[in-house]
Amino acid sequence: MPHTLDHTLALLSRTPATLNALLGDLPDAWTVTNEGENTWSPYDVIGHLIHGERTDWIPRARRILESGESRPFDPFDRFAQERESQGKTLTKLLDEFGRLRAENLTTLRAMNLKPEDLARRGRHPALGVVTLSELLATWAAHDLTHLHQISRTMAHQYRESVGPWTAYLGVMRCSGHGQ
Amino acid sequence: MPHTLDHTLALLSRTPATLNALLGDLPDAWTVTNEGENTWSPYDVIGHLIHGERTDWIPRARRILESGESRPFDPFDRFAQERESQGKTLTKLLDEFGRLRAENLTTLRAMNLKPEDLARRGRHPALGVVTLSELLATWAAHDLTHLHQISRTMAHQYRESVGPWTAYLGVMRCSGHGQ
Repeated sequence: MPHTLDHTLALLSRTPATLNALLGDLPDAWTVTNEGENTWSPYDVIGHLIHGERTDWIPRARRILESGESRPFDPFDRFAQERESQGKTLTKLLDEFGRLRAENLTTLRAMNLKPEDLARRGRHPALGVVTLSELLATWAAHDLTHLHQISRTMAHQYRESVGPWTAYLGVMRCSGHGQ
Repeated sequence: MPHTLDHTLALLSRTPATLNALLGDLPDAWTVTNEGENTWSPYDVIGHLIHGERTDWIPRARRILESGESRPFDPFDRFAQERESQGKTLTKLLDEFGRLRAENLTTLRAMNLKPEDLARRGRHPALGVVTLSELLATWAAHDLTHLHQISRTMAHQYRESVGPWTAYLGVMRCSGHGQ
């Protein structure tokens, strides 16, 4: 389907409640476990999403509107959550994510973007020229790639427990695709 | 992690709220679209989950407790939702799933299963001998494989819209693993 701001907003606005329902007060055995060395737990993912709300999506949208292709986006720190989540409970992180997401969607709506704005171009430090429309669609798809990751990481904890049923559970064959 | 009934119940009890938060009142462009021929939309998946609540998990748990390995499970109809969801809105399906899941968890808790019950064996018509513990772990992992599928199917709708960012979105490289 073509990208529309309405579809993107509909998805982005639901993610905090989805993650609260899935992870809130769930035993640690589901939420702080990962898929092995150098992989992320659901707890790590929420920290990563928080860092994105602070430094990625809205700052990059502003950069496009203010500077176009002339000034590339600042690089994103994929490991910021290792510092920033320290000492915080998952509940606190989920609350923080929900608050930041709500603020950012208020900001996005206030930008009152028109089709010609969505076509404006910026410069990604590695990917090159991108449009504001692509940035906003990626914000939504990024929520989904991490929901995909969280569900896979949680399923991994039951990899042995399901016995022969693993043959029928596609998620058990998902290698993660680098995420 | 080893299978525990508490961990399984914690997960199973959250899935209806997770799916309501993710899909409730979302535009049809996200919920009735799929990944191509012979693939399922989120709407299709909810119908499949409903059929599982009716015919799979609790009936099979009862079969193990009542008949052990002597009487195999009835085969599961993976396409029942094509008939059973007809004419129903997604909202109605989500409500139906939530109601059935709550009833089934009440039933499961009332079974008051002990470790020796969880070790009891039954017979799957294709997979052979399985335990009650494996059946219950699979019920939880089955929720996760379909959350994994729903997030992938939704991301697929923005495959073109994200432009060059597709390189950074693992979900876009997930082939589905048959589910």
